[in-house]
Amino acid sequence: MELKTRINSAIAQNIADARAEPAPAQLAAALDYACFPGGARVRPTILMSVALACGDDAPRVTDAAASALEIIHCASLVHDDLPCFDDADFRRGKPSVHRAFSEPLAVLTGDSLIILAFEILTRAAGQDPKRALDLLGILAKRTGMPNGICAGQGWESEDTIDLGAYHRSKTGALFIAATQMGAVAAGHEAEPWYELGARIGEAYQVADDLRDVLYDEKVLGKPAGQDDLLGRPSAVDQFGVQGAIQRLNDILSGAIASIPSCPGEAMLAKLVRKQAEALTPVAPAVAKA
Amino acid sequence: MELKTRINSAIAQNIADARAEPAPAQLAAALDYACFPGGARVRPTILMSVALACGDDAPRVTDAAASALEIIHCASLVHDDLPCFDDADFRRGKPSVHRAFSEPLAVLTGDSLIILAFEILTRAAGQDPKRALDLLGILAKRTGMPNGICAGQGWESEDTIDLGAYHRSKTGALFIAATQMGAVAAGHEAEPWYELGARIGEAYQVADDLRDVLYDEKVLGKPAGQDDLLGRPSAVDQFGVQGAIQRLNDILSGAIASIPSCPGEAMLAKLVRKQAEALTPVAPAVAKA
Repeated sequence: MELKTRINSAIAQNIADARAEPAPAQLAAALDYACFPGGARVRPTILMSVALACGDDAPRVTDAAASALEIIHCASLVHDDLPCFDDADFRRGKPSVHRAFSEPLAVLTGDSLIILAFEILTRAAGQDPKRALDLLGILAKRTGMPNGICAGQGWESEDTIDLGAYHRSKTGALFIAATQMGAVAAGHEAEPWYELGARIGEAYQVADDLRDVLYDEKVLGKPAGQDDLLGRPSAVDQFGVQGAIQRLNDILSGAIASIPSCPGEAMLAKLVRKQAEALTPVAPAVAKA
Repeated sequence: MELKTRINSAIAQNIADARAEPAPAQLAAALDYACFPGGARVRPTILMSVALACGDDAPRVTDAAASALEIIHCASLVHDDLPCFDDADFRRGKPSVHRAFSEPLAVLTGDSLIILAFEILTRAAGQDPKRALDLLGILAKRTGMPNGICAGQGWESEDTIDLGAYHRSKTGALFIAATQMGAVAAGHEAEPWYELGARIGEAYQVADDLRDVLYDEKVLGKPAGQDDLLGRPSAVDQFGVQGAIQRLNDILSGAIASIPSCPGEAMLAKLVRKQAEALTPVAPAVAKA
């Protein structure tokens, strides 16, 4: 709860900066609409948890990193919802940005938020230039081409999909960014934190595949059955529902085992276990027939 | 000519990095398609000219800055051409990215190129961290909200347009970035170079308004008469054709007068004069009736 407040406060301040004079009013409003009210803020929560586990000795750098990562994630949701991709009318229980504003404003909202994320990290150089530059490098790598979420989305235009590369970039990338940026924000090395992020990303991908099959639009807050409808590869196709749930648990055990030695190791393990419970679908009452 | 070779070589190397394994093939191809063959490379030419005028003592930083700026410009063209904006079928004499590839790939191409620009500048920290961070700050400010080209495009969704803010951000922003980034890449202060960039930007806006009225699609390499069609404010509406040409010359004289004292001051004045000749429409044979 406290983490979420800290995250939201950082994002709110950064969005306010982007909305300052002489910003055009509608685009300014759309930036806020795309980021608030937020979802579970999972990626920045992981980032901050890793930073805290590593000592969090530069909290303003951690705030910048968490805010930048979540803002990039929000940007990706706005663009993913566009008519030419998912054509989603709803997101987080309210009309998607292109439905609430317009398609041009949705494109510009995504663009502006991507740029804002890099601007936030650049400003963090005022606290610590070395960490800011390392954070910029990680965020760029996990967002763009050839390894980031853009690459992941790009795979969906290919006739033949490299499934490993697809999942690593589409879902894994921002979780890898989360663990690595958390470590770097607190002055630790990025590399040892790759595996935890990659495994949490895998778990989310499987959980998302399960939710897409098991839950309806009301629970998801967005259209259900999209993977099947859009012909996207899914863990449920590959392993069945029970097999996918088993795989989810295996991945999360691996994630816990991969946590690098640090002061907050036990706290992090607890967090991953909590995420595991939240991720595993256990609501047959709302499952689709 | 030599400058253009240097610029294209820097961009080509950066695009190659973004296309590396495991990039999805079509998006990888679209990144290249959006940047080559280029247009006049005006913005990076100005950037490099300013850097040279200031001594160009860190040429790899200058290369990174020029490449990042042009790549952001190419990204903006790809998104501006989308059906929800200009719906342009052609750009630089060939099909626009969404026509040659697809709309999803055009959105992703723009996103990936924006991120790549920031990644290029982040990597330049290997040469000089302080300059790299200053360049990142300038590029972010002149690209995003509330002062960058996204803001400029955002103004077109408003019922009431702040014309000053609109032109400064829509066209001026990347010229301000060009002069300031050129100075910073060579270790000079950014601030004294604001006015030269702003004035060149104004001149381009007026020249673009004139070309849009006077030339046909074949000459422009993109649809003509777009400003009128899309109800965009234009200097020709405000001053008439002859008035706009006079204004263009006044602005360029002001630009030359504003050049800060530096070793290459005379060379820069010559460059601006050359740009002025290239900008002023003098081809009645292709003018529309």
